[in-house]
Amino acid sequence: MNRVGVDIGGMSVKAGLVDACGNIIKKGTVKTDVEGGPRKMIADIAALINSLDAGETDGVGVGCPGVIDSRAGVVECAYNLKWEHVPLAAELSALIGKPVSVTNDANAAALGEHAFGVGKGRYTDTVFITLGTGVGGGVIAGGRIVEGRDGKGAELGHTVLVVDGEPCSCGRRGCMEAYCSATALMRDTKRAMSAHADSLMWKLSPTLDAVDGKTAFEASKAGDCAANEVIDNFVKYLAEGMLNFANIFRPQAIILGGGVCAQGSYLTDKLEAYCLARNYGFKNTPKFEILTAGLGNEAGIIGASVLGGVCIG
Amino acid sequence: MNRVGVDIGGMSVKAGLVDACGNIIKKGTVKTDVEGGPRKMIADIAALINSLDAGETDGVGVGCPGVIDSRAGVVECAYNLKWEHVPLAAELSALIGKPVSVTNDANAAALGEHAFGVGKGRYTDTVFITLGTGVGGGVIAGGRIVEGRDGKGAELGHTVLVVDGEPCSCGRRGCMEAYCSATALMRDTKRAMSAHADSLMWKLSPTLDAVDGKTAFEASKAGDCAANEVIDNFVKYLAEGMLNFANIFRPQAIILGGGVCAQGSYLTDKLEAYCLARNYGFKNTPKFEILTAGLGNEAGIIGASVLGGVCIG
Repeated sequence: MNRVGVDIGGMSVKAGLVDACGNIIKKGTVKTDVEGGPRKMIADIAALINSLDAGETDGVGVGCPGVIDSRAGVVECAYNLKWEHVPLAAELSALIGKPVSVTNDANAAALGEHAFGVGKGRYTDTVFITLGTGVGGGVIAGGRIVEGRDGKGAELGHTVLVVDGEPCSCGRRGCMEAYCSATALMRDTKRAMSAHADSLMWKLSPTLDAVDGKTAFEASKAGDCAANEVIDNFVKYLAEGMLNFANIFRPQAIILGGGVCAQGSYLTDKLEAYCLARNYGFKNTPKFEILTAGLGNEAGIIGASVLGGVCIG
Repeated sequence: MNRVGVDIGGMSVKAGLVDACGNIIKKGTVKTDVEGGPRKMIADIAALINSLDAGETDGVGVGCPGVIDSRAGVVECAYNLKWEHVPLAAELSALIGKPVSVTNDANAAALGEHAFGVGKGRYTDTVFITLGTGVGGGVIAGGRIVEGRDGKGAELGHTVLVVDGEPCSCGRRGCMEAYCSATALMRDTKRAMSAHADSLMWKLSPTLDAVDGKTAFEASKAGDCAANEVIDNFVKYLAEGMLNFANIFRPQAIILGGGVCAQGSYLTDKLEAYCLARNYGFKNTPKFEILTAGLGNEAGIIGASVLGGVCIG
């Protein structure tokens, strides 16, 4: 039976009617009205779902940023939405008359890629890492989401790779997010440019303000030494984090999402070489595949639609 | 019904008949005969189990060091035993005529502490960390062992806390094991003694060879500055590792095992202070309790006896 998936973002809320094969049959979007408060936004989401003519649907899944108590269906804290302790599942369910499941947006995307994206039908165990403004994570083990007690874990981006290292948004130092996010990549690109006035990066980005997540990658592909160093470091920290998760979960594949995954094999080839030199985490254990996400912006909708459904994988 | 738990160690194999409340009714031990090879040792274990008069027992669980494929019941690689690809469950089951389950020894101890030790009946989600020659880990989530695909994960000691840090036995650098094992603590104690000829540690351990895991702790309790620095560093790395696991699994408690846990509240008070200053991992998430193991050497037998049993917690 078709299901509805909802992906709440800081700029817009997207919803889709999704069939059992993970295809989006119909979709819609509504602007995220942060200032209107949670009641208004939940009403907007209900109207969006009703606009999909989802009559026969037996359930709705929602992916939401922030700390989510997925068991209770409560958004404990979502900074971007200015939400605290919002009983999203109960309130949305009351408006639309259907059961509602909620999880973290990274978990939803992980589920989407696992079930219907690049991992479709191939794996039982995957780890998904999104490299964006921050670093998010989602873990599927034996076909089920591992999201920590009450759904409040799987904060893979907030595992420390360098004790006393770079400051992180969470208040600790040295988190994976502080080395592997697009934000961190741009910070390191600017530092390298400041130290190397002759770098090709200055041609691609005439000012530091113009730097983006592609600057160092493009210069590295053209052979620029300073850019190579930035990318080699980015690869090192990302690979070390991946090897950590491999040693905990031993997945068949690690899937990378976010803008950086557009670098494709230029990135994954380097990651594979690094991981191979370290036995993929531990001696006498199987290697894992390193993949880039396949569903793009639709992973959230498709993954959320699977929530509350049967075990997949 | 009673069950049998077997704990295979590098020096001896211990087995116990364990009742449904986790009490050992009868136990026995046999020397670990590494040179005799796996067939001989499996025959020894079968004889040990038969000596327990476990007639009515409906199953046997075994905790074994090394990389274990728990789904297949195969010991893939156990360096201390010189075993590779040993189908332990099948061969032992054939000898004793009962079903046999196998897992990693740290997972078994985690299960023992969770079900019948310091976590008895109190938690659904715990993380167990053994601080010995190496650092082992076991994770219980929602009452079930999270041991990674085919039982080959949960290598918590082999997650990197310091990229490019101290060399680790696994071939990588900077693993938790390279900072938080008794071996690492002794290394750092010796380094501090070498740098501080006037340290009290020299009175407690007149030679570097006499250093053990207690030397720095005892000197720290007596107010020795160099020893305080060693312990503060040990606490920092251990706490950072614990916070990483908290952000992944969000357990109600983290249980510490191994010789170092004899330091009790002198250690856990310092860990709690460090974790409290970092919001126990992440803002707006619940804190976790920090406990020392309660079953001592019997955790392995008791935990193994639960293997293959029903969901606990």
